[in-house]
Amino acid sequence: MALELYWGSGSPYSWRVQLALEYKQLAYDSHLLDFTEQEHRSPQMLRMNPRGRVPVLRDGDFVVYESLACLLYLDRKHPEPPLFGRSPEEAATILRVICEYQAYAEQPLLEIVAAVFFDTLAEKVEEVTRAMHVMAAEARTIEDRLAGSDWLVGQQVSAADMTVFPQIMLLLRAMERREAAELRERFVPIDRNYPAIARWIARMEQLPGYARTYPPHWRDVATRG
Amino acid sequence: MALELYWGSGSPYSWRVQLALEYKQLAYDSHLLDFTEQEHRSPQMLRMNPRGRVPVLRDGDFVVYESLACLLYLDRKHPEPPLFGRSPEEAATILRVICEYQAYAEQPLLEIVAAVFFDTLAEKVEEVTRAMHVMAAEARTIEDRLAGSDWLVGQQVSAADMTVFPQIMLLLRAMERREAAELRERFVPIDRNYPAIARWIARMEQLPGYARTYPPHWRDVATRG
Repeated sequence: MALELYWGSGSPYSWRVQLALEYKQLAYDSHLLDFTEQEHRSPQMLRMNPRGRVPVLRDGDFVVYESLACLLYLDRKHPEPPLFGRSPEEAATILRVICEYQAYAEQPLLEIVAAVFFDTLAEKVEEVTRAMHVMAAEARTIEDRLAGSDWLVGQQVSAADMTVFPQIMLLLRAMERREAAELRERFVPIDRNYPAIARWIARMEQLPGYARTYPPHWRDVATRG
Repeated sequence: MALELYWGSGSPYSWRVQLALEYKQLAYDSHLLDFTEQEHRSPQMLRMNPRGRVPVLRDGDFVVYESLACLLYLDRKHPEPPLFGRSPEEAATILRVICEYQAYAEQPLLEIVAAVFFDTLAEKVEEVTRAMHVMAAEARTIEDRLAGSDWLVGQQVSAADMTVFPQIMLLLRAMERREAAELRERFVPIDRNYPAIARWIARMEQLPGYARTYPPHWRDVATRG
């Protein structure tokens, strides 16, 4: 029985798992859920994930959710090519970079994105300013890693790249919005502010199957303000 | 060369790695850092972890930090007994439970603990009330898991238990404080409110080497208000 992925367009967590499935060249049935129709909270979905979040990965009778757990499942079940490295040291460094990203960068990034998409920048000036400051420093840390290496850890793309990349893309998309006019110069043009990150994005976009992972609703509209 | 662990007393993140080292019966040099002396931010420590946090695990020339990354390193380097299960399904479920804990329970728990220890309950009534509400629901989820099983995932203690346990202990310790008098009845006595969690705590305390992991400064003072 084929793997089944339940996902939402624009969900950076879903995107991680799509990147992993494509990288490992695994066949899977793709179930795109419509957030506006609350399909991710249908009775069928809530039976698989009581929290009503995506992605949800099903493999026969086995169900897993939480994107990192999905990545680990795929890697333990289908070890080649690896997502968590070939040695204990690589595995640990990959998870360390992921944990650092989650502990220090993810919240500020999502705060900025939410303020842009929900148009609450004006009422959240202080919080967003602080978040921009933290995020710029974390982006610098990522830039420095990528200045000396094609991938975040080791010689190949890994779970670290797949974890960080979709959120960076989400941030850049938010920066294209008209509402972000006064924020964006800190990050974009990305190739001027963070040239190593820009080259890494281009490398990610060259991964086999990448086009199939790109959020479908992002293709539709040009949003630059 | 022996493993070296740099840690702080009462750091729940450090405690995770101590539990793992003891469970795997690995020899290690224990370096207890004095937070009040800022020893975790000494030049030597900042060279190993620029973020100045503990735990830091060193194995010869290799250094890793972020507690989950330390657990994964130990598990990949010394697979028996496993921390991340014996099958892809177990590994995924263990990491899923960890990720859920981090995404939904950790922040409210730390918010409550901080408000008690820093004596800011009065000025943070709303935030703490909300955090208590969320944490009680998450504790109920944990209780339900443990009502049907000795351990959070599978038939053996795992990285999931080692991740969650130290923070539950920290919460219970906070609840003993005089400042928590009006909060505590939601959680304690634990054996009445969450009997399966209470039995699980007793099982954790029976793990070989547990006594060596218990925060030394917690032994010193009885703080019940």
